[in-house]
Amino acid sequence: MKRVAIFGATGYTGFELIRMLLSHPGVRISALTSEQYSDQPLGQAFAPFKGKLAGAAFGKMEKLVGAEFDAAFLALPHSVSSSVAGSLLARGVPVVDLSADFRFRSIPLYESVYGVTHKSPSLAEGAVYGLPEIYRERIRKTRLTAVPGCFPTSVILGLHPLLSEGLIDRKGIVADCKTGVSGGGRGPTLGFHYPEVEGGVRPYGLPKHRHNPEMDQELSLAAGEKVAVTFVPHLMPMVRGILATCYATARAKVAAKDVEAAYRKAYGKEPFVRLLPPGLLPSTKDVRGSNYCDIAWRVDERSRRVVVVSAIDNLVKGASGAAVQCFNLMAGFPEEEGLRAMPLFP
Amino acid sequence: MKRVAIFGATGYTGFELIRMLLSHPGVRISALTSEQYSDQPLGQAFAPFKGKLAGAAFGKMEKLVGAEFDAAFLALPHSVSSSVAGSLLARGVPVVDLSADFRFRSIPLYESVYGVTHKSPSLAEGAVYGLPEIYRERIRKTRLTAVPGCFPTSVILGLHPLLSEGLIDRKGIVADCKTGVSGGGRGPTLGFHYPEVEGGVRPYGLPKHRHNPEMDQELSLAAGEKVAVTFVPHLMPMVRGILATCYATARAKVAAKDVEAAYRKAYGKEPFVRLLPPGLLPSTKDVRGSNYCDIAWRVDERSRRVVVVSAIDNLVKGASGAAVQCFNLMAGFPEEEGLRAMPLFP
Amino acid sequence: MKRVAIFGATGYTGFELIRMLLSHPGVRISALTSEQYSDQPLGQAFAPFKGKLAGAAFGKMEKLVGAEFDAAFLALPHSVSSSVAGSLLARGVPVVDLSADFRFRSIPLYESVYGVTHKSPSLAEGAVYGLPEIYRERIRKTRLTAVPGCFPTSVILGLHPLLSEGLIDRKGIVADCKTGVSGGGRGPTLGFHYPEVEGGVRPYGLPKHRHNPEMDQELSLAAGEKVAVTFVPHLMPMVRGILATCYATARAKVAAKDVEAAYRKAYGKEPFVRLLPPGLLPSTKDVRGSNYCDIAWRVDERSRRVVVVSAIDNLVKGASGAAVQCFNLMAGFPEEEGLRAMPLFP
Amino acid sequence: MKRVAIFGATGYTGFELIRMLLSHPGVRISALTSEQYSDQPLGQAFAPFKGKLAGAAFGKMEKLVGAEFDAAFLALPHSVSSSVAGSLLARGVPVVDLSADFRFRSIPLYESVYGVTHKSPSLAEGAVYGLPEIYRERIRKTRLTAVPGCFPTSVILGLHPLLSEGLIDRKGIVADCKTGVSGGGRGPTLGFHYPEVEGGVRPYGLPKHRHNPEMDQELSLAAGEKVAVTFVPHLMPMVRGILATCYATARAKVAAKDVEAAYRKAYGKEPFVRLLPPGLLPSTKDVRGSNYCDIAWRVDERSRRVVVVSAIDNLVKGASGAAVQCFNLMAGFPEEEGLRAMPLFP
Repeated sequence: MKRVAIFGATGYTGFELIRMLLSHPGVRISALTSEQYSDQPLGQAFAPFKGKLAGAAFGKMEKLVGAEFDAAFLALPHSVSSSVAGSLLARGVPVVDLSADFRFRSIPLYESVYGVTHKSPSLAEGAVYGLPEIYRERIRKTRLTAVPGCFPTSVILGLHPLLSEGLIDRKGIVADCKTGVSGGGRGPTLGFHYPEVEGGVRPYGLPKHRHNPEMDQELSLAAGEKVAVTFVPHLMPMVRGILATCYATARAKVAAKDVEAAYRKAYGKEPFVRLLPPGLLPSTKDVRGSNYCDIAWRVDERSRRVVVVSAIDNLVKGASGAAVQCFNLMAGFPEEEGLRAMPLFP
Repeated sequence: MKRVAIFGATGYTGFELIRMLLSHPGVRISALTSEQYSDQPLGQAFAPFKGKLAGAAFGKMEKLVGAEFDAAFLALPHSVSSSVAGSLLARGVPVVDLSADFRFRSIPLYESVYGVTHKSPSLAEGAVYGLPEIYRERIRKTRLTAVPGCFPTSVILGLHPLLSEGLIDRKGIVADCKTGVSGGGRGPTLGFHYPEVEGGVRPYGLPKHRHNPEMDQELSLAAGEKVAVTFVPHLMPMVRGILATCYATARAKVAAKDVEAAYRKAYGKEPFVRLLPPGLLPSTKDVRGSNYCDIAWRVDERSRRVVVVSAIDNLVKGASGAAVQCFNLMAGFPEEEGLRAMPLFP
Repeated sequence: MKRVAIFGATGYTGFELIRMLLSHPGVRISALTSEQYSDQPLGQAFAPFKGKLAGAAFGKMEKLVGAEFDAAFLALPHSVSSSVAGSLLARGVPVVDLSADFRFRSIPLYESVYGVTHKSPSLAEGAVYGLPEIYRERIRKTRLTAVPGCFPTSVILGLHPLLSEGLIDRKGIVADCKTGVSGGGRGPTLGFHYPEVEGGVRPYGLPKHRHNPEMDQELSLAAGEKVAVTFVPHLMPMVRGILATCYATARAKVAAKDVEAAYRKAYGKEPFVRLLPPGLLPSTKDVRGSNYCDIAWRVDERSRRVVVVSAIDNLVKGASGAAVQCFNLMAGFPEEEGLRAMPLFP
Repeated sequence: MKRVAIFGATGYTGFELIRMLLSHPGVRISALTSEQYSDQPLGQAFAPFKGKLAGAAFGKMEKLVGAEFDAAFLALPHSVSSSVAGSLLARGVPVVDLSADFRFRSIPLYESVYGVTHKSPSLAEGAVYGLPEIYRERIRKTRLTAVPGCFPTSVILGLHPLLSEGLIDRKGIVADCKTGVSGGGRGPTLGFHYPEVEGGVRPYGLPKHRHNPEMDQELSLAAGEKVAVTFVPHLMPMVRGILATCYATARAKVAAKDVEAAYRKAYGKEPFVRLLPPGLLPSTKDVRGSNYCDIAWRVDERSRRVVVVSAIDNLVKGASGAAVQCFNLMAGFPEEEGLRAMPLFP
């Protein structure tokens, strides 16, 4: 049994980590930190889990950085994560970080996008971007994984096979994303106040959301040249899920069967990517509560337009599920452990 | 490994059975019936489960009544269940029935409420009402369990301790219930058409919903005299969950601590009933996707009014979760097997 | 043309007042106050109205108490209203107050319920409770109307005819109310954060919500003796609307036709109360955005149980619509002016 | 007072027509047809309007084609409209048609898209496409207006100024649209069943929705050359509203101020198009229940990407509101008559 700690356990991604790790047969949650709910039992901070983890009250972060455990999940704000990760790694504790702190290969880019000075640039070099579908072997060997942002996960999984196989133009790519409100976190603001959200849809983050450079980084690596996606997120009147609808232009002479082959090659054996059969299109409802990413595509050979649609649960495959998947690889567990729950539908 | 069959697998309760049984380590789903989707693979009838149970297509019911399996769940319409149950039981297959066919102790009452002639009145005598919190030992020994209706589950769990301990008047009890739309099944009708439901709340089933006599039956048994609850269901703009708000009058000299003691006695050791601490009130969101029933109460000693609030997921504790819980008792599994998933929140 | 001022114009009830008064042919909105959005144009504080009332920026309250207008609506927090109302009335400006400050006939009761010292007890004596269905003639003659709370409106309109005609017992009355989230105002808090509300229903305000004494006051006056309703509000995953389901016991020998007659007598000629024909039950969707109150009832003569259901839009008939209705009476306009919009459905 | 008839009055667009025409001072609704609800009073077919239009029961269409009225709105299925329009026009009754029958300039294109033979190709020639922002003067003079589809309205209003001014490439245009469920009509189907829609988002209509050729037709006319938009509609968990997010490439040397100027020129004086100030983005909630179309745009001069976002209420500006707006022009009423209601928010 691995003892794991969750830092920042009282946000939505923290709760999801608890939910999934409670069903993980190889793990015991041995520490939870929360600045807001310190010294309270789990059930008080979060009513759905009342009665669980009876002994475990939330501790202040500072008290727990020296405690005993075998791995740590950091569900902390960016810039806080990087200041904690160092001391954990120094003590030999592997870290799965859900913040943006270790996602960028360029520290100056990170600093410009997030408007802060990076706390541990030297650690960033050794971090691996936590998309097992692309970096599985590197994740197995690292001690520091940077779980991707929710939007980048949906867009990268959708477009990576097409760019790495050279099937689409690197220019003019559009990623129109629709997200549930939980992506905005648990802090109440007017923009996420129930009466302001229900029954409406709106874009936000224009001209440039900070997940845009992150997806550009990975898609550029896939393409072998610079890719700059036009990315617009939209807020939906729903809690969970991201649907990414991506638009691109097929290169000359690319046929529908080439696109099909690229997806089969990339994801044919992936445990959490489901390529939909003809006639079906992804829906965020079909993956809710699960670690699945559903993908479908349509190619119009005449106009050379390609449309790719991917759906994830932003709190699972887009955050905490991906974190557990990476952890399993790092710790030598079967990759699906703790992640076998089917979608909750309806 | 027990091989189980699910009859009527393509309604919402059928899907829930599949979802939970897939996580049950002692069970293999070996047969699925569906009239509507016969010969189709699971993922086509129900996109969220695509890729699962790869070999298992849906068969017509008639083909499967003679197949080999160790237990059967019947998620069939009332009156159909009772016509199937007999041949299964005759072959020695234990049956967990989710319909109303075996819930009533009086066949004439059943026939008057459901407007049909009972197909197997002799079997009904041996059936046990599937509320483990009340009938656990009898469920362990039966071969035919009648899973309670969703509303009766929420109301009976809320009121049973008060009536069996003689703490409230049997007269004037009100049960005001609020339900999600999934309780109405998967068949599209104008009343459940999205634009007609979203953003509104309305009562239905007045003057008398057919779950009313069912709850009266069990509460009368608890009280030892006839109880006739005034029950009004309301349709909420949400998918899952029932909240039952029950109102009663405390008998003279009954104090708040007596009420507390009755609940502790009844449910103190129950795995799926959570008695909320002071300050908390149940919410259907806190139990969504789980088999929990959350209960809280308030007693105004001066006016002698008692308010009891209970919350369940109508598809889990109100149907398929209760079915699995009963099955575990009947088959000798730990009672919580397959039911350990925490609520999905938010 | 009457010039009217709206104090506290940037809450939901303030916006509703603007919406309705813009369609009122006899009114010109000449002043708007807002502490939060002072000096901003209307469209910035509230995007749906951008381009309207072009000249009118929001002013601080203190600047406007001396401005010129013919009537004032106060959509201010309780205790603030009463401190403003006095100077307005002293200048001869009639006041329609949406706060609780002038709703109580007993100042000590008000002070105990709201936990404050009343600022203008002498004014309270002359205030009229703003339910035209009961106090129409008194509203015509007053200069200070106290618009009822949203829950009291739904419950009082539902039960008043039965109590004033002596058809139900004054004891054991239950009012189970379901409200949309807009009733909680525009201030973001965790309890009204979108992900916490969507898809769930929960009670709140137990043991005693502050609207309870208000409805008791009016129902006691109707009954001619003390009535203490057991009132429980519930939060729905929707924005607008209150559904009140009220339960009572008919007095001996009261027949269904007596109940019918009482409602016909009370509301047969009311412009905004709709008594539903047999077979229909109220839904909050059927009144959304309108000033209607829909009412239906069911009587079980054998058990003597009476169930009354009423539905309103909490922001219209439960607040701003009632305010305009009262204003029309006070100012001599046709009662329906500005209130003719049909419900927005679906 | 003009007497108007509504053919097909019991779908959502029919109800919207009634709602708006009831507030139109120059109109009397003198006839309503419904095949489904014939001979029933309005309040029975549609509870929100109970008590209104007391004398008016729904008649069968065939009975009413010969009745007396001054104008007709056809809210009928495609192909039915064209068979009714002829006899009305022959009797001198001007027609506002909400179906697709008269929207296409090419009969063969219509027939290929809708899979039917056109019933009145000769009438189609004289029909005017009902977008007053583009065809105002022609609408004033016609006797047959074809109200645009909901998606085309949102996309055409968003892109027309850019194409008619030659500011964007005609190739590679993407229109990603998000719609509420009411666009699918009032007929219950599994795809619009509440539990299947709530909490999820999904694309549909791929590879080619039938509104695609309609928007291509008008945008090609604007551009003066063939435009083929890549259009993907998505179903949102909400009732009303369309948000169109359109992506295009600015032509060389086009600056942000040119785009601004094009929108000002096109819509600066339009009563129902609101160009949002910097910092604001459209939301479907901000236009709900109103005839407004809100538009904003962002130009990245460096990458030459242009993003245009437009929001409408699909049942108002996307259908019945546009119909009333056209009717006002045809009948000589002020263009805003019956359309002055502000958005219902929240």
